[in-house]
Amino acid sequence: MKKNVLIIGAGGVAQVVAHKCAQNNDILGDLHIASRTQSKCKAIVASVKEKKSMKVANGVFKTHTLDAMDVAATAALIRKTKAKIVLNVGSAFLNMTVLSACIEAKAAYIDTAIHEDPLKVCEPAPWYDNYEWPRREECKKAGITAILGAGFDPGVVNAYAALARDDYFDKITDIDIIDINAGDHGRWFATNFDPEINFREFTGQVLSWQNSQWTSNQMFEIRKDWDLPVVGTRTSYMTGHDEIHSLSKNLDVPNIRFWMGFGERYITVFTVLNNLGLLSEKPVKTAEGLEVVPLKVVKAVLPDPASLAPGYTGKTCIGDLVKGEKNGKLREVFIYNIADHEEAYAETGSQGISYTAGVPAVAAALLIATGEWDVKTMVNVEELPPHPFLALLNRIGLPTRIREGKEDKPVTF
Amino acid sequence: MKKNVLIIGAGGVAQVVAHKCAQNNDILGDLHIASRTQSKCKAIVASVKEKKSMKVANGVFKTHTLDAMDVAATAALIRKTKAKIVLNVGSAFLNMTVLSACIEAKAAYIDTAIHEDPLKVCEPAPWYDNYEWPRREECKKAGITAILGAGFDPGVVNAYAALARDDYFDKITDIDIIDINAGDHGRWFATNFDPEINFREFTGQVLSWQNSQWTSNQMFEIRKDWDLPVVGTRTSYMTGHDEIHSLSKNLDVPNIRFWMGFGERYITVFTVLNNLGLLSEKPVKTAEGLEVVPLKVVKAVLPDPASLAPGYTGKTCIGDLVKGEKNGKLREVFIYNIADHEEAYAETGSQGISYTAGVPAVAAALLIATGEWDVKTMVNVEELPPHPFLALLNRIGLPTRIREGKEDKPVTF
Repeated sequence: MKKNVLIIGAGGVAQVVAHKCAQNNDILGDLHIASRTQSKCKAIVASVKEKKSMKVANGVFKTHTLDAMDVAATAALIRKTKAKIVLNVGSAFLNMTVLSACIEAKAAYIDTAIHEDPLKVCEPAPWYDNYEWPRREECKKAGITAILGAGFDPGVVNAYAALARDDYFDKITDIDIIDINAGDHGRWFATNFDPEINFREFTGQVLSWQNSQWTSNQMFEIRKDWDLPVVGTRTSYMTGHDEIHSLSKNLDVPNIRFWMGFGERYITVFTVLNNLGLLSEKPVKTAEGLEVVPLKVVKAVLPDPASLAPGYTGKTCIGDLVKGEKNGKLREVFIYNIADHEEAYAETGSQGISYTAGVPAVAAALLIATGEWDVKTMVNVEELPPHPFLALLNRIGLPTRIREGKEDKPVTF
Repeated sequence: MKKNVLIIGAGGVAQVVAHKCAQNNDILGDLHIASRTQSKCKAIVASVKEKKSMKVANGVFKTHTLDAMDVAATAALIRKTKAKIVLNVGSAFLNMTVLSACIEAKAAYIDTAIHEDPLKVCEPAPWYDNYEWPRREECKKAGITAILGAGFDPGVVNAYAALARDDYFDKITDIDIIDINAGDHGRWFATNFDPEINFREFTGQVLSWQNSQWTSNQMFEIRKDWDLPVVGTRTSYMTGHDEIHSLSKNLDVPNIRFWMGFGERYITVFTVLNNLGLLSEKPVKTAEGLEVVPLKVVKAVLPDPASLAPGYTGKTCIGDLVKGEKNGKLREVFIYNIADHEEAYAETGSQGISYTAGVPAVAAALLIATGEWDVKTMVNVEELPPHPFLALLNRIGLPTRIREGKEDKPVTF
């Protein structure tokens, strides 16, 4: 059954989502996109038309103005557009209001990152217990599917973990999720997604799951170099990340860590801004008496991540290094994807980071439309069958590969 | 004749000025201090009383609330306090309104830094032509003395240049003004005076006077290490500075440069903030629609310079390296002062940077009171006789020394 889709948000990820939904509008039906600034939505739809991404060329793709913090307005728009699936790729601050609207208006809900409270950074672990999971019963009662964290990381990396569990291991001891952007945007400094959300990831403590318990470290305290396919040897630092908070609960794996690649420039900028207090989410008062959140000013001066796309070159490598046992023998595999910034831009007008986050969310929407993932409750991606998801991603732009020892090959289903 | 003094401002320099005026209130008469925040003025007067700085113990020292951007209010306060000398050590944005009030109410005017327009950075050279010098005739007509830039640099270093011209050289080819703060405030990062004014010094082009013309460079483009008395070998960078803009006009010297000492930490912080656009004086708009000047937010998160004083250790070395000819022979002298942060704090409750800026301004006020510098027009310090000024500074805390070849000795008058 065709299902209308409402996309919320109008940044780089929304642009990818719009293109991918359009390419599959024979399955999805009418498309709608809404954000606070309708002109951004219009620009995205114009790009979709310009690139002839609409599979059903005369299909509907409409734009709307929406304050998604307003539950009633969001529910009203879901009803008006007859949307059966809401793809929430707006700010992480909107998740809970959009979820409420979906429950009220009976639409499936998909997001790509955990809910955040603007005034709080790094809440208690597991993070999903703070906002999402307490609402599972509500979703079940309303009979709506809510897929949490269906981007790349979290999202595809959770499916990789599930795939490892199902197909490659009897017992898993370690999952190291590694996220390397080996691309070059040519700017002195820029973040690849919303700077506010980006920096907020790193201003708190670094939580990891080790020896089956939460472990706390400082940012940039633990460094590890990895020899990776295509992008070569890269430096990463242990960081906190959403997926550890669901995988630690849903998988019986004692060690789950997340490693993010950082260049020297990022570390210098982060260190200066953080030490000066400019990454704080707490308001300060200027000498003139104006109350302002420093991090929001940092965001205002940095390049719009969407603006990086045209000149972005290079590739990303994101995957799960999984260790454990199979048939009584030690085993180690790296399940991963390589994405290319220039190819992402040519196809969708967005760079590779937006591409890797947006494409999986659309894959999740397609699997809800086909019924394969329409589970009528709230789930994280590792709770869903990984095969249909990864098979679909193989076809629509994010193919999975596996490296084991000297062998490196595509994963096919 | 005793002259009442009105101090405008209530920061670290104002605190030094208050103490030094109090120590000389037998010459100066009633003292008044005014700023937007009267509580800061009261804290300064309390410190003066606590350290028993009042020479005439039962002398007057009153506090006032004043918006010094308001000419009429400032003139009214000058009249009310019967102030004959206004020591303007408030923000550099106030200079022209305070000068207007002095002209209107017939009081002598002293400042320690050039006037700045909040919306402009690095205006055309010579800087004094933009605001101050066009008003010289007004001062002359009103019969008031206006001494511009009577801090250390500008101020004492201008007097050093005049001293070199009068006593040490027949002809000067080069004046290199060197400002090294070899102190340690123990913070990760802090500016020694108002961060807004501090960073504004370095965000524009670097103007120097070379081969009798204005020369432009980038900040941190030209580095020079100096072997200096007491503080040893120190790294400096060519920077723009007020005094070049008057010395180049008032002295017949083809090369006048300014060198400021910077540590690695300062350069890193400055480079990051400047490259990101966080030092901009131009407002940006946050995603939430709030208009805010990034530099004012940086100021808001940085430590209050006055708060650095208690733990500040080490010394400053500021002086003029002068090259030229005397009696047909090449000559090179370094005329300088060494100030100590801890001694400055013990005496005035402020650190050394505030001390070196504030004490000369009070010396200028004393020389206006005694008539020696009461010239009834607008002047820069090098246009005034240097001997009484430097002799007075020898007595009140900033002794002058001279190094020539292997000889290094006090300059006495």
